Amino acid sequence: MKNFEFYSPTKVIFGKDILSQLGTTIRLYGKKVLLVYGKNSIKATGLYEKVTALCRDAGISLIEYSGVEPNPKLPHAEAGAKMAVEAHIEVILAVGGGSVIDEAKAIAAGACYKGSLWDLYSHKAPIKEALPVIAVQTLPATSSETNQVSVLTNPDTLEKFGARSPHIVPRVAFLDPSLTFTIPLQYTAYASFDIMSHLLEGYFTSTDPFAPVQDGFVEGMVKAVIKGFKKVQVNLQDWDARASIMWAGALAWNGLCNAGVEGAVIPNHMLEHPLSALYDVAHGAGLAILFPVWLRYRKETIIPRILQFGRNILDMEDEIEGLSDTNACDTIISRFADFIRSMGCPSSIAEAGIENPDIPELVRQARTLCGLWGINGYTDKDLETLYRMAL
Amino acid sequence: MKNFEFYSPTKVIFGKDILSQLGTTIRLYGKKVLLVYGKNSIKATGLYEKVTALCRDAGISLIEYSGVEPNPKLPHAEAGAKMAVEAHIEVILAVGGGSVIDEAKAIAAGACYKGSLWDLYSHKAPIKEALPVIAVQTLPATSSETNQVSVLTNPDTLEKFGARSPHIVPRVAFLDPSLTFTIPLQYTAYASFDIMSHLLEGYFTSTDPFAPVQDGFVEGMVKAVIKGFKKVQVNLQDWDARASIMWAGALAWNGLCNAGVEGAVIPNHMLEHPLSALYDVAHGAGLAILFPVWLRYRKETIIPRILQFGRNILDMEDEIEGLSDTNACDTIISRFADFIRSMGCPSSIAEAGIENPDIPELVRQARTLCGLWGINGYTDKDLETLYRMAL
Repeated sequence: MKNFEFYSPTKVIFGKDILSQLGTTIRLYGKKVLLVYGKNSIKATGLYEKVTALCRDAGISLIEYSGVEPNPKLPHAEAGAKMAVEAHIEVILAVGGGSVIDEAKAIAAGACYKGSLWDLYSHKAPIKEALPVIAVQTLPATSSETNQVSVLTNPDTLEKFGARSPHIVPRVAFLDPSLTFTIPLQYTAYASFDIMSHLLEGYFTSTDPFAPVQDGFVEGMVKAVIKGFKKVQVNLQDWDARASIMWAGALAWNGLCNAGVEGAVIPNHMLEHPLSALYDVAHGAGLAILFPVWLRYRKETIIPRILQFGRNILDMEDEIEGLSDTNACDTIISRFADFIRSMGCPSSIAEAGIENPDIPELVRQARTLCGLWGINGYTDKDLETLYRMAL
Repeated sequence: MKNFEFYSPTKVIFGKDILSQLGTTIRLYGKKVLLVYGKNSIKATGLYEKVTALCRDAGISLIEYSGVEPNPKLPHAEAGAKMAVEAHIEVILAVGGGSVIDEAKAIAAGACYKGSLWDLYSHKAPIKEALPVIAVQTLPATSSETNQVSVLTNPDTLEKFGARSPHIVPRVAFLDPSLTFTIPLQYTAYASFDIMSHLLEGYFTSTDPFAPVQDGFVEGMVKAVIKGFKKVQVNLQDWDARASIMWAGALAWNGLCNAGVEGAVIPNHMLEHPLSALYDVAHGAGLAILFPVWLRYRKETIIPRILQFGRNILDMEDEIEGLSDTNACDTIISRFADFIRSMGCPSSIAEAGIENPDIPELVRQARTLCGLWGINGYTDKDLETLYRMAL
């Protein structure tokens, strides 16, 4: 284990009917509130009506800022920050999934920063201050509701970069699993795979000789997400299954699982960010395409970790007994790829509807992310091969 | 899963040489500091010199308050709170194990409360305010460094009660595994078993039909503590093993593992608190004595959980194959008891040096705790039988 800091100070309020506490909770931080949300889904489900009524009843002055897109865009966040400043907003209330919460964090930080918001994402300036963010999570996937991270896409440069600061961690996260009942199976698959990818990238790249606490967290949570997803496939409104996915979604990427793990990096996110920055593909779908490709390409360097994954997560001890390590790894990776397909995720870039992607640009962006995220060992040729294998 | 709140806002600073950050960290909260510690151990290890020098170098005005006992006592905490008020203390710095941190929290709360400190522990009044606490953990066991709990013993009534409040969560916890190198093997065993007991009591009493995230956390962490302890048995200064036990110790009882788990209660702590309140037995040793007794007594009511424990934590799938559930449970409990003995923990009250314990008083106190902690299903006869089985 190596040195680390862990700080996830969000108060999580989890369960049924918890939104009744929304008004009083917001009032602890202020009463001029910017409600940030996406497009129509929270109106279609009735959540919009519920949230606005609860705020009204609590005497909260609510200004709305809607239109957050998946892979949220810099100009929209900039305009939101401008609005927050002009309206003397005291609290940012995010109602939606990871994209909405990420953009709410950007608005919260942007409202307290005089320069260009992109400075905070392109590592030109640190976030030193932000308005308080409160999150109502509707699409658990990114742990944005409990973590220090916000990811934005700059449409001018087509770059998708993240900012990181303790100032933007949501103060309170409302997690009501019943709000996720309406997520279609396909998007539940993408979100679940995003959670699994957050957990497994550090697990596969770990070079730690002994980190059983962290390995155990990952193994337990990945198995929980797999079990939960299988139950959701049977019943979209399975409360316990939705609850387990939601709780795993909040913890998978809040810093807990990778804390102190030597070597842990996120190569699959490094490969995926350029794809969803350049093309309109769901982040979780992109991750699902690239993960088995990455495993096949890097197999020889991570044999013990793939074997541990096969044994402890996929319960393949009996099936791989007697096989050579290489054959065992191939068997495990194939089983994983089969499972990903069975979730309903695409297994190639073509299957995601992207034809003739701009591989040099994908490589260029991935290269930048390797630098920003401290991921070593990938030449441009490696990156190109990985994208070609995923076509 | 049932509704829950989870809030563990402590900033954890973990690893080698982290104490270099102590002075600047304390200064974020104030410069008049009460240093709370136990007896001589931090002087013997040189930690006292180090901490006081670091504080001096950071311009901190340090007042010392030593003499915290294992199972810390109310009058000592009351006197500490009085001293903190009189000296206009701004920050409580705890350097020690769970007892020291628990008493530091009591002092922090007591300094902000006008009535009798025992009010806050006997559920007569809630903690509404407390001075900030910063913890340097030296004996990981209770998660006091990251949780809302403080336990005190009242020597007048010989009651051992806990207070719980978000106001007493340490703001920052310094976790340097090398500070635990000097813990003798016997006390490492008690501390490790305390961690395991925190994890396993909720696991065994869970009636949740589906909580795989929480089950996975417990399974992973208990296995990690077992692996870590076995490495420490070989080498007291095994950094990775000490680090894993320390990290598990910080997370086992901070609310994460039981969050939302239906039915989860802590019967073994309910049985143990009276024992270490009445007799001078280490808390972890008391837990080690009582846990197998409790499992044998309640076996029939928790068969599926014992089987899951045997399979997923002790890896006994092959050994219990073909056995009846009852025989399988007996085999698993025996293996667990053997492991506890192999740790060097006592396996009866007599072995802990206690002769003719006052069973009616133990039962009376356990009865009170059943009420305070919401533990149902134990008659006085049950409690008496449990204590007698442990003699």
